[in-house]
Amino acid sequence: MWVIKIGGEVLDNPTVLNQVLDDLTQIQEPFILVHGGGKRATELGKALGVPQQLIEGRRITDSATLDIALMTYAGEINKKVVASLQARGINAFGLTGADGNVLKATLRESTPINYGWVGDPDPKDLNMPLLKSLLDQEIIPVFCALTHDGKGQMLNTNADTMAAVIAIGLAKVYPIKLVYLFEKAGVLKDVSDDTSMIETLPLKDIEHLIAEGIIQGGMLPKIANGASAIQQGVKEVLIGSAPNLLSALKNTPKSATHVIL
Amino acid sequence: MWVIKIGGEVLDNPTVLNQVLDDLTQIQEPFILVHGGGKRATELGKALGVPQQLIEGRRITDSATLDIALMTYAGEINKKVVASLQARGINAFGLTGADGNVLKATLRESTPINYGWVGDPDPKDLNMPLLKSLLDQEIIPVFCALTHDGKGQMLNTNADTMAAVIAIGLAKVYPIKLVYLFEKAGVLKDVSDDTSMIETLPLKDIEHLIAEGIIQGGMLPKIANGASAIQQGVKEVLIGSAPNLLSALKNTPKSATHVIL
Repeated sequence: MWVIKIGGEVLDNPTVLNQVLDDLTQIQEPFILVHGGGKRATELGKALGVPQQLIEGRRITDSATLDIALMTYAGEINKKVVASLQARGINAFGLTGADGNVLKATLRESTPINYGWVGDPDPKDLNMPLLKSLLDQEIIPVFCALTHDGKGQMLNTNADTMAAVIAIGLAKVYPIKLVYLFEKAGVLKDVSDDTSMIETLPLKDIEHLIAEGIIQGGMLPKIANGASAIQQGVKEVLIGSAPNLLSALKNTPKSATHVIL
Repeated sequence: MWVIKIGGEVLDNPTVLNQVLDDLTQIQEPFILVHGGGKRATELGKALGVPQQLIEGRRITDSATLDIALMTYAGEINKKVVASLQARGINAFGLTGADGNVLKATLRESTPINYGWVGDPDPKDLNMPLLKSLLDQEIIPVFCALTHDGKGQMLNTNADTMAAVIAIGLAKVYPIKLVYLFEKAGVLKDVSDDTSMIETLPLKDIEHLIAEGIIQGGMLPKIANGASAIQQGVKEVLIGSAPNLLSALKNTPKSATHVIL
């Protein structure tokens, strides 16, 4: 089974998004989709006079920003993706972590950085009976990057983390492969050169790639979460470009970066 | 089983909304919640420069207004209600008609009034196996008033209609009671006087109450849908005030208007 995370850059590009949605109809195995927000949240923030701030690819979430995340991730984006998949004959079902209590999270500590209403989920809190019931009905869960604390508070959650936590939780029962789709070919030695993609990335190399500044910015959560997934039983972690989805799933050479133990 | 629709005025008043959510924890039977949008959609429309227009309690839905409905109904409101119910120990699950294709609708004809992206659902399109699977898991479905056409288009749907269609669909399998909760005591002879509430409203009286202007505005869709529900197998239709929910469910005298055959 695949857990496929699509990044904001994919959501922001209708041509690429439609190709990914078309490609998803070609997958034989069951899969779970996880998406974040993209430019839409930032644009809505601007229109409503709520400035958006990101630190290391993670959004600082005050109450107004949480509302924007609820509106864009869970509302507009999630439902449009679900309806688009339904039109393609995929029985998609949109959800946040709050729905059916499928994934609870813990409010992140406010030190050293106060991220606001941000939650960190734990794979042990993944509601496996509910997910299994949906998958058994051939339903494709489409998660947006929001969870709840179980005490009435919705929490913004990094979409890369959410995908990894869902993959790790499922890996206890199913053989799981995790795919991060974004706008680059994979982890690049030279960020401006797609041909510099690292095909195989062993965990032991990650530290010095971060020290050298090759892994940075929005790649940091992908790598940290990918590494954590591979250490906790996920069979494969791929980081690659959205238009390469099908070749990446088929393990075609040079189609994506493989994070390995 | 109860299908309970909460109106915009209830959503707009945190004290009343919290009381309703508390009251829901007292219900022994399974239930389904349906909610609309309320002021939030109108406010967001204003903030984004998208004027909102209602005709006979129904919103004219251009593309920008549909996005606002997606953001407020399916995003902010639905997820906050779900998280609040989860905090109360109710295993709520938010959904639109698109999710799991639980309720498909047909784009409304553009004549005599072009309502835009508005869908009319049919009880025969209610996905009973999916709903039954959720109810069997003691999950409480929380519907917002959006459906899809199955061809990739989300559709705005009158929340009163949505509640009635869900009630009618379920009535084929479960004994169903439908409750419309709003800010008034029920159907009032004098709209400014809660004591003028009509306790029992036979279908045959509806036509002349509309002709006399007693039933008008936002009450029209409630009555039309309530009448349709009672004619199609729903056991009881109640129209009453949100704070009276529990007494209405217990059939306490003067707690709500009962629409009867």
